[in-house]
Order: sequence, then C-alpha cells, then structure tokens
Amino acid sequence: MTMTPIRGAFSGTEHHFPVHVYFEDTDLSGIVYHANYLRFFERARSDMLARVGIDQRAAIEAGAGTYAVTQMDIKWKSPAKLGDDLLVVSTVTNVRAASCFIQQAVMRRGEILCEATVTAALLSPDGRPVRQPADWVDKFKAVMAEGEE
Amino acid sequence: MTMTPIRGAFSGTEHHFPVHVYFEDTDLSGIVYHANYLRFFERARSDMLARVGIDQRAAIEAGAGTYAVTQMDIKWKSPAKLGDDLLVVSTVTNVRAASCFIQQAVMRRGEILCEATVTAALLSPDGRPVRQPADWVDKFKAVMAEGEE
Amino acid sequence: MTMTPIRGAFSGTEHHFPVHVYFEDTDLSGIVYHANYLRFFERARSDMLARVGIDQRAAIEAGAGTYAVTQMDIKWKSPAKLGDDLLVVSTVTNVRAASCFIQQAVMRRGEILCEATVTAALLSPDGRPVRQPADWVDKFKAVMAEGEE
Amino acid sequence: MTMTPIRGAFSGTEHHFPVHVYFEDTDLSGIVYHANYLRFFERARSDMLARVGIDQRAAIEAGAGTYAVTQMDIKWKSPAKLGDDLLVVSTVTNVRAASCFIQQAVMRRGEILCEATVTAALLSPDGRPVRQPADWVDKFKAVMAEGEE
Repeated sequence: MTMTPIRGAFSGTEHHFPVHVYFEDTDLSGIVYHANYLRFFERARSDMLARVGIDQRAAIEAGAGTYAVTQMDIKWKSPAKLGDDLLVVSTVTNVRAASCFIQQAVMRRGEILCEATVTAALLSPDGRPVRQPADWVDKFKAVMAEGEE
Repeated sequence: MTMTPIRGAFSGTEHHFPVHVYFEDTDLSGIVYHANYLRFFERARSDMLARVGIDQRAAIEAGAGTYAVTQMDIKWKSPAKLGDDLLVVSTVTNVRAASCFIQQAVMRRGEILCEATVTAALLSPDGRPVRQPADWVDKFKAVMAEGEE
Repeated sequence: MTMTPIRGAFSGTEHHFPVHVYFEDTDLSGIVYHANYLRFFERARSDMLARVGIDQRAAIEAGAGTYAVTQMDIKWKSPAKLGDDLLVVSTVTNVRAASCFIQQAVMRRGEILCEATVTAALLSPDGRPVRQPADWVDKFKAVMAEGEE
Repeated sequence: MTMTPIRGAFSGTEHHFPVHVYFEDTDLSGIVYHANYLRFFERARSDMLARVGIDQRAAIEAGAGTYAVTQMDIKWKSPAKLGDDLLVVSTVTNVRAASCFIQQAVMRRGEILCEATVTAALLSPDGRPVRQPADWVDKFKAVMAEGEE
C-alpha cells in the first residue's frame, strides 16, 4: 500500500501545515509542552522549503550548509491538547543576503494558540553565516509576492 | 483553508501510518535518533486506536485510564534519514483482558528499518492494570479478524 | 550506592545550573537542536523553584496549578556541541501577582551561546491565570534582593 | 562560578548515573513518557564511555564512527514521576569484535522501574559495522573484570 506523504501547501503567500497532537507532545500538566511548539514551527518551515524546491538534505550533503534559527519571539496564548488537529500558518516576511524572516502561528479552528517571529540564517558546515544561493532568494521572493504557483 | 488531518488507515488487518523525518528526529550521527522510532510507533498506535473508534483523550478525561507500554523488543536494522517518507505498519496480534500485543515495523519503500513487538496494558489513573472495556476488546478482535471495514 | 542528585545552586541573585550535552540534544547539523535550549532553560527554572522551596509536583497534586511559559524572546548566538558542559544562568527580574519574569542564558566557559527573556504565569488546573501564593512571591522577592541564603 | 559537571561513576563493575525527572520527560498521563527511558539509558551509556576514556565526539570528528543501538529488550515495571531522583545502573555483559552488550536498569530508591538489555554496534560514518579499536575492547573488558579503578 502506498500512502500520501504528510505535507503542507501554500494558500497564496501563506504556507499551511497540519500537525496532530500525540502523547509525546504533552507533559503532565495535560497540555502540549511549550518547547514542542518550536518543533511544530520547524516542521512547517522545512515543509515550506521543500514546497518551494529547496532540498535541505541535499544541501547539507553537498556542503552548502544549513539554516539555523538565530532569533525567535514567541507568545503562547492558549494550550493545545492531545488529539488536537492544528494548523501551522507560516509567512515569509523578509529576505536578506544571509537570512530570512518568517511569521508563524499555530492555529486550532481559527484560534491562534501560539505565534512567533523567526529569524533563520544560512550557516556553512563550520558554522559561519553565508549568503543564500541566488535562486533560493528568488524562490522566497516569489513566495512573498504571490505564493507558490 | 482547511487541510486534511494527518492520518493512517487500515489495509486489511494491517494499520498503515505515514511519518516524515524532520530535523528534530535526527542526531549528530546524521540519522534518526534510536529512541525516536518509539515516538513513531506510538503515533501509529494512537492513530490505530482512533481509527477503530477508541478516543484516548476522552478515556483519560473520563477517568477510564490510559494505555502504557509494558514491554518492547526492538531491532534497528537500517537507519532513516532527514526527509525520508516512512510507513509504520502495525498489526494487533493478541488481546487479553488487560493488555494487547502489537507487531510494528517502520518501513521505507518496502525495506524494514526498525521492528518491534509491543505489549500495552490499560492502567487506571492511579497506575494499576485494569480490564479493557468489552467493546474495546471487540474492536481489537474485529481488527485482528479482517481489518477495519 | 547513593549518588548526589543533579542540582543547581544560587550564587547571589544568579541561579546556576549545569547541563551536559548528549546525543539526544543534537541534530544532523552536528549541533544542539534549537528547541532543546528551551528544555535546558526549563530544567534550570524547575531547579530554581526547588531551590527556593517551591515543590511543583506537590502544587500540581494539590490542585494549586502549574507555571506555564507565556512569552519568550530568544537569541541563539553560537552552537553547543556533543559533550559540552554548559551552565544555565537564571535571574528573576520581576514578580507580579500572577506572573514572573526571568532572564536566562546558556553559557560555555563564560561565552553566551543562547539567551532568553521569559515570562511565566501561574495557571489553575483548568488553564486560567491565578495569583501566585503570597509566600511564593516572597520567595522570589528574597531571591531578587540577595539570592538564596 | 564553576560547577561540578553532571557525572556518573563506577561502583565495581556497575556504572551508576543519576537522572532527575523534569517536565519535558513526562506526558499527560502524569508519568515519564515511555520512550524517554531510552534517553536516560543513552545518557548513562555515553557517560560510561566517557568514564572509561572513550571520547565519542573525538571519534566522530576523526571519522572513526559511532555506536548505534541495534537491539533493545525493554520492560517498564513502574512509572517515574516529576521530580524523582533516579539512578541508571549499567553493566557491560559481553564484548565482541564489532558490538557490545549492556544490561541497564532505571532505579528509584532500590526499586527497578525499567530494565533493558542493549546491543550496540560500532558503525562507520557510512553506516557499516566496523571492528571496535583494540584499546576500546580492552577498556570494556577491564570494566567487566573489576570496574574502573
């Protein structure tokens, strides 16, 4: 049996990515452990890169480097619970030579549970900031202009 | 925008559940960290319960207890990597009064990467083994006989 | 054999908490996965609460509620690696009726790798903000004034 | 301020390693999430390697490969809870050319909460089993004979 891979998609300039809450995501207070929202955000960003045609694994294996998060400002507003179907909404808000800026929110049926502004920088294998390939910048700019076609 | 939730499905007596490998799943050796296969297995079992009509969150909130893994025998055969699309295949092999037995494998395009035999017991909120509700046992037996209809 | 539990300690108004980096903390880029710094910060805050005499587990079991992080502004400056011995330095900067503010940094031999400002609110078991017990507020104020004696 | 790093130690042939339970380790059933015991076991094994003089990070950076768990048989007997001080007890039971065998238990005040038999194999950077360096085998055999001096 084949099964459709888990995937997000663009809706205009917004990238939408579904997340289901499992036991591993919760803690004993009965809700999703706060740090796990960062895992949800990262899954969504990785999917967004894949959707625009950036293959992170190939980039790492080719020695082109990897994105690292350098800054996040996060607000947790309302808790997610076991079994919830969440949607991570991500929007690229700016692109510079060596970094990009993304606005992200974890939603449940239209309610924002957690939101973050994220700065990600491309780092060389030895950890120094490097310029993003020109075609990657173009991809981000295309997404900011109108979403993926 | 609505988006189809991430879900598995039965194919005969086998439950199939897709997993995509993200950065969070890997470690510095470049492959999926061994303990994270247990998270994949648990997601698949939770989905299997949902598919047969057992609502774990409702059961916990109603004080009916929760399943706990009491035994696993696991073999890791070949590593999964960033970006892999995996399939967790789960089969209920036996059901007793207070526990059930599941055979699980993490597959990549037909190759078994990791396989496990799992014993799960239903525990009361204070941690003691309790009998599974009769209709849950019936659901498992129906799955063992022919898969979900 | 008995073994001294893993613990932090106050040095004046600063709480110091040691963290060692294991495989589980890293990802395939060879460094600590960004979200795992939030786990380090949380361990340090939990230890700080224990050091000033606040028993979180007893508070949860008594229905007094639990702290939830409501806001974090985080900067990642330099990566931690497998085997590093890190020190989490935490300082309570303000206490209000229902929340407290903490400045935290993950250090390696005097270098700041990651720093965060954290807002934590006390939530009732049903998730609403509640006033912190007066003696807890007193404990935080004592720490802010001079550190634990 | 300097702070003694978190460390285990040998007591005869047994390696003892302390673990404190934090929020991140628990799930909404109020106890430690089952997969997290594998993280505790791995921390203890990494510490055991460090104690006998095997530097995993140096070995990875030198291209000498890394240990991968290939098999675990695990029994969960009783749950650990938030704030518990646990002790991971590890004993090397056998060493072969390319793999070693370890018996591990997570204890709380003399009670076994979880126990496992573990097979770990040394893998080359491209994932193939390789012979362990002769001095590593000697180190393990010395530990099996009498513990670290």
